[in-house]
Amino acid sequence: MLSLSAGAFGQSRQEYIQYVNPLIGTQKMGHTYPGATVPFGSVQLSPDTDEQPHNIGGKYNPEAYRYCAGYQYDDREIVGFSHTHFTGTGHSDLGDFLVMPTVGELQMEPGDKGDPRSGFRSTFSHSTEVAEPDYYKVLLEDDTILAEMTATTRVGMHRYTFPASDNAHIILDLMHGVYNYSDKNVWTFARVENDHTVVGYRQTNGWARTRTVYFAIEFSKPFTSYGFKNFGKEDYKGFWRKFDQTKNFPEMAGKQIRAHFDFKTAANEKIEVKFALSPVSTSGAMKNLETEMPHCDFDRVKREGQAAWNRELGKVAITTNNRGDLVNFYTAMYHAFISPTVYMDTDGQYKGLDQNTHTAAGFINYTTFSLWDTYRALHPLFNIIQPARNRDMVRSMVAHYDQSVHGMLPVWSHYANENWCMIGFHSVSVLADAVVNSKLTGVEANKALDAAVQTARTKYYDGLEYYMQLGYVPEDKNSSSVSKTLEYAYDDWAIAQMAKKLGRTAIHSEFIRRSQNWRSVYDNSSGFMRPKDSSGKFLAKFDPLKTEGQGFIEGNSWNYSLYVPHEPAAMIDLMGGKDKFAAHLDQLFTMHLPDTFFAETEDVTREGIIGGYVHGNEPSHQVAYLYNWTNEPWKTQERVRMILNQQYHPSPDGLGGNDDCGQMSAWYIFSALGFYPVAPASGQYQLGSPSVKSAVLHFENGKALSIEAKNQSPTNVYVRKVEVNGKVLARTYLTYSEISGGGKIVFYMSDKPNK
Amino acid sequence: MLSLSAGAFGQSRQEYIQYVNPLIGTQKMGHTYPGATVPFGSVQLSPDTDEQPHNIGGKYNPEAYRYCAGYQYDDREIVGFSHTHFTGTGHSDLGDFLVMPTVGELQMEPGDKGDPRSGFRSTFSHSTEVAEPDYYKVLLEDDTILAEMTATTRVGMHRYTFPASDNAHIILDLMHGVYNYSDKNVWTFARVENDHTVVGYRQTNGWARTRTVYFAIEFSKPFTSYGFKNFGKEDYKGFWRKFDQTKNFPEMAGKQIRAHFDFKTAANEKIEVKFALSPVSTSGAMKNLETEMPHCDFDRVKREGQAAWNRELGKVAITTNNRGDLVNFYTAMYHAFISPTVYMDTDGQYKGLDQNTHTAAGFINYTTFSLWDTYRALHPLFNIIQPARNRDMVRSMVAHYDQSVHGMLPVWSHYANENWCMIGFHSVSVLADAVVNSKLTGVEANKALDAAVQTARTKYYDGLEYYMQLGYVPEDKNSSSVSKTLEYAYDDWAIAQMAKKLGRTAIHSEFIRRSQNWRSVYDNSSGFMRPKDSSGKFLAKFDPLKTEGQGFIEGNSWNYSLYVPHEPAAMIDLMGGKDKFAAHLDQLFTMHLPDTFFAETEDVTREGIIGGYVHGNEPSHQVAYLYNWTNEPWKTQERVRMILNQQYHPSPDGLGGNDDCGQMSAWYIFSALGFYPVAPASGQYQLGSPSVKSAVLHFENGKALSIEAKNQSPTNVYVRKVEVNGKVLARTYLTYSEISGGGKIVFYMSDKPNK
Repeated sequence: MLSLSAGAFGQSRQEYIQYVNPLIGTQKMGHTYPGATVPFGSVQLSPDTDEQPHNIGGKYNPEAYRYCAGYQYDDREIVGFSHTHFTGTGHSDLGDFLVMPTVGELQMEPGDKGDPRSGFRSTFSHSTEVAEPDYYKVLLEDDTILAEMTATTRVGMHRYTFPASDNAHIILDLMHGVYNYSDKNVWTFARVENDHTVVGYRQTNGWARTRTVYFAIEFSKPFTSYGFKNFGKEDYKGFWRKFDQTKNFPEMAGKQIRAHFDFKTAANEKIEVKFALSPVSTSGAMKNLETEMPHCDFDRVKREGQAAWNRELGKVAITTNNRGDLVNFYTAMYHAFISPTVYMDTDGQYKGLDQNTHTAAGFINYTTFSLWDTYRALHPLFNIIQPARNRDMVRSMVAHYDQSVHGMLPVWSHYANENWCMIGFHSVSVLADAVVNSKLTGVEANKALDAAVQTARTKYYDGLEYYMQLGYVPEDKNSSSVSKTLEYAYDDWAIAQMAKKLGRTAIHSEFIRRSQNWRSVYDNSSGFMRPKDSSGKFLAKFDPLKTEGQGFIEGNSWNYSLYVPHEPAAMIDLMGGKDKFAAHLDQLFTMHLPDTFFAETEDVTREGIIGGYVHGNEPSHQVAYLYNWTNEPWKTQERVRMILNQQYHPSPDGLGGNDDCGQMSAWYIFSALGFYPVAPASGQYQLGSPSVKSAVLHFENGKALSIEAKNQSPTNVYVRKVEVNGKVLARTYLTYSEISGGGKIVFYMSDKPNK
Repeated sequence: MLSLSAGAFGQSRQEYIQYVNPLIGTQKMGHTYPGATVPFGSVQLSPDTDEQPHNIGGKYNPEAYRYCAGYQYDDREIVGFSHTHFTGTGHSDLGDFLVMPTVGELQMEPGDKGDPRSGFRSTFSHSTEVAEPDYYKVLLEDDTILAEMTATTRVGMHRYTFPASDNAHIILDLMHGVYNYSDKNVWTFARVENDHTVVGYRQTNGWARTRTVYFAIEFSKPFTSYGFKNFGKEDYKGFWRKFDQTKNFPEMAGKQIRAHFDFKTAANEKIEVKFALSPVSTSGAMKNLETEMPHCDFDRVKREGQAAWNRELGKVAITTNNRGDLVNFYTAMYHAFISPTVYMDTDGQYKGLDQNTHTAAGFINYTTFSLWDTYRALHPLFNIIQPARNRDMVRSMVAHYDQSVHGMLPVWSHYANENWCMIGFHSVSVLADAVVNSKLTGVEANKALDAAVQTARTKYYDGLEYYMQLGYVPEDKNSSSVSKTLEYAYDDWAIAQMAKKLGRTAIHSEFIRRSQNWRSVYDNSSGFMRPKDSSGKFLAKFDPLKTEGQGFIEGNSWNYSLYVPHEPAAMIDLMGGKDKFAAHLDQLFTMHLPDTFFAETEDVTREGIIGGYVHGNEPSHQVAYLYNWTNEPWKTQERVRMILNQQYHPSPDGLGGNDDCGQMSAWYIFSALGFYPVAPASGQYQLGSPSVKSAVLHFENGKALSIEAKNQSPTNVYVRKVEVNGKVLARTYLTYSEISGGGKIVFYMSDKPNK
């Protein structure tokens, strides 16, 4: 560990990337990946340390979950480097186009874990591993090949330093994937255009039901020969039997194929591989390659990629008490700025939800909307420090709506597909946050509201018809009914806020009325949110500690009952008033959860728990801030600092749960700066306790917000007072305009609560 | 049979379609289909009478061959109406998007042959069947539904007259296909856009390895409900389990799915279904639908389609001795003008061989090039009476070359795929015919020559490297070696003709030299073409009557030895001179083939045989005309008339073999008019014996050629003399300019040979 010198750690020469450790979250269940990517890049070029199929023989393989991002820190082998990865998800897909260099006898299978000689996989060690923003390096020990990666938005670049060999190979594995299974590859296709150019695609049926990714590869050195092997069992090949397709035949296709490209190498000879992706076509991939990487200068790509990262990371310049907090903060910033990812060619073409090719007119099209997670803090963070991108993300969502046969905004969407993961329709919250804070206006804002309204009225969607009829989702008709009721109510409120801002009163009335539905599932007798059946009776069997069959998803009633972000005060009233509620929260943070909880609650591990409070998953992310509505707001300050300390560490096992496309990181960033959007689209950011000593937020409007935490220290976690531009703040929240308008906010820290 | 009235049969009111019987060739092995299509139309909407998979359990199913066009006249049931069919092929694919109307209990499987109640298939009878150009009608007896079909180029239209029913259905079967097998469907997808519009696609791995066809459907009446069933076994569906996808859920996808759309119908209520195809996208299909069929007037579509047929058929106006010959002739014209088919959207977009979307700039893009067949007579026919289309077909082939990673022109290509069927690279002959006769000039002609040369130099293609090294294909290295050697030699000569015309002497020299290679495989000891091994020795085991393992494909040495179309005189010299050769031909036409011949020779049936001469398949199509190079040209006249009489009949079993995309029909048309292109690109058309009484060929250049056969009768098969524009012709052939320049050709017929 680092020995700290006196004084604050800050940034010299604006080299923010030095504080980013992409390995954070790669151990245990952070589900991050360590490889190379630029901010919001389409390519995530990263090592995969194992291939665990999502299911085996039709049954779910629990090992798969650990490999949502392809890489597990405890593994000792790398199977290769693939080009697409989600960051932090709790379900998965992607892992397209695994590339692996080898020398010696050609091996066309990855081999068995623990036995690297059994296939093209190789032993590696963390001692030779370097992971930086847009740069990854590792020594592949089996064949002593140094592997380096960097990327532009749409093009990955590999640099392999080979030993001398007459028999060097670069494997292109089109079968490999994350969350693969026997039938996932629908079709793959490759064309060898010439002795250094290969194009093709992979089409899969996975989390995304109908997904195709196209590629174009350029090798820096011509290959001397090539071939492929079909591991599938297509039983009819037309007249292709006319040729020996397996060797030097420039067209390859099948459901399960791997190709190899062969080279003779001198000692320490470097071969670069430029690998472009496209959502549209191989010609699109080729165009992306030519546009973004006309040269073959690895160091330039790395330098420009890291400069891009420095620009993005520098949007928030902080000082802290120790280097660990800097690493936590800038790694959180890094993880927050990876996803959603750009999803269009350099000319604006992209594949739409309708599987047709569209052109993004006047915006950048993004994909990978993990909205159940990211509407909470990630998009609100973007709305402050990445408003232009966030607006384009909103436009991407509205384009999705335009292309949706359901007439719905995305729920959880990636790569021209709706995967319907999780619950709610939280895109409306992202839209509302943008509209309410005037980041989306006029025709566009009204179109966004129309999309939100139509989405919220889609009767056949996940219990919505019952919700609209009965005021709640009945558990006997649709499971996880309380979670759905609570989240729909919040989403409805978000729509109402948009309608209010746009003066559309009928919509405002309709959705404000709907937003009250959370009250339907509050059970006064137990003091918890509790599932009802369709006759209006609460379910008799009820245990607020349990998850399974209790009306909740990825959480229990203890955590989920606190989800009324738009009306905490009313919720607290209903739950017995401020003091009773504060005591209730205390109990949550100090209770012990039964062992069964972990067995039956998806996406939650022991690392993500503080008492009964689950930080490692999203449903409770606002909970620590709820003390602000009681008589003990100082407990928010205490809890927030505790969570920042206990749940985030500058080490590979540093994340207490899935990063969920940056939501966990966004929580860190907001909380470290001293405020948090409990109800996005409210325009209010609840004050907590900053962990930074100071921060400057540089906004796109040219303004800057300076935050200072006077008397900051690890023990001075309480806020004595807050001044905004010199005036003492008499409330527990900041407004959007107070933040984005720039100026200065001073927190006066103390080791004693301001009771 | 029809009783003939005195005098010639001709055309009143130019209603040529009255002489077309699309049922000709649907019985036995003609492999034609009876359904609705416009000239060269992208849609071939036709009944399929059975579903015979290409293979069962990995083994070839010999029954499949009968269903190359989906329909067999002897069947008594229709399984439905699908939208794409090859005409006359001896291998197959397509059969996309089967539609079938039913009433009563929903049946989602086609059921078993002979048991129509077991599925949605229905009994039908030829007594209710009407097949006309662009119109097909039949009564589906099981449910008493009258089915009618018509089409524009890209849109099929169904009209179903239902009985009264609360439970009427229209099945959309995305699993169905011609030459299907378990793994052929790679993916299918459908979206219900609204209560009367459905779009989607089918992607297959068959004869075309990677083929996708997109569709857009509009029903004239909204359906009341819909659903689908997945017959596949994809074992993971992402989060789609959230919904009951099978009922009224507007997205459907899977490898094996069928959908149903439900209606309530009044007695005799008609429901029209407009069904558009696109090679590019569902939005392309929608656009094609809106552009070509903005209305819902079935009778108008039929009227316009039939008018288009009348225009095309009227390009050759004939009179004959009897109505049967008129039917034979115009049905041959009909079959000749079906394929190749238009392969692009109304805006010119199409999918290229590289699987990218291209735009046809200044030409119509065509697909389905059955070139081993059609270079012989079909394209030469087009070059005379469809030169604009033929030029666009050449442009389509050159575009294929541009998109080919092999740098090759099409061999046998369809739907953005090269299927590599059969041998040779006969596209060069089509190009040469167009260049030599000045239908392609300047830069385009030179580009075509470049493409031809590069194709002919593709060493790894099917023995070409050996051919280029040794002067022949050695049987021990590459089978069917004699067929390949002979056909390469002809193709080489065709390239040389192009080069000569364009003044590119080096190329001319190279390919004229190569065109002599046919001599390498002539075995003087046996008097036959005979396979050699790579050491230059003729194979010891040799039987000129046999096919299997004898160095030939779809033919024996008796037939194939006569294939030197570019140098018949030299071949005849080598084979012993004119008289010996004439006797040899006599023997061919009168010999008996052993029974084993049929067992071992693909694509040849007893119906297609005259003695040992095989007319039902292509390799001998020039043979009857070879007497012109002997002292007995009158035997050409006799044989041609015999073949016209014996091999073509105005009845469903009227074709003696696969029509092969119109090649068999083109042979008929040429021969009935009195001449035939033995060597396309020679500019020479060998005279035979016309069977018409008169003919007028209307050319695109505004000129017309009048042909008259004086004293024509079934017995006056000999030609006493021929006059071209009043001058007696002193040779046995016409030239391209004599034909296309217009004027008058008079054949003086006689019942005695002009020895």
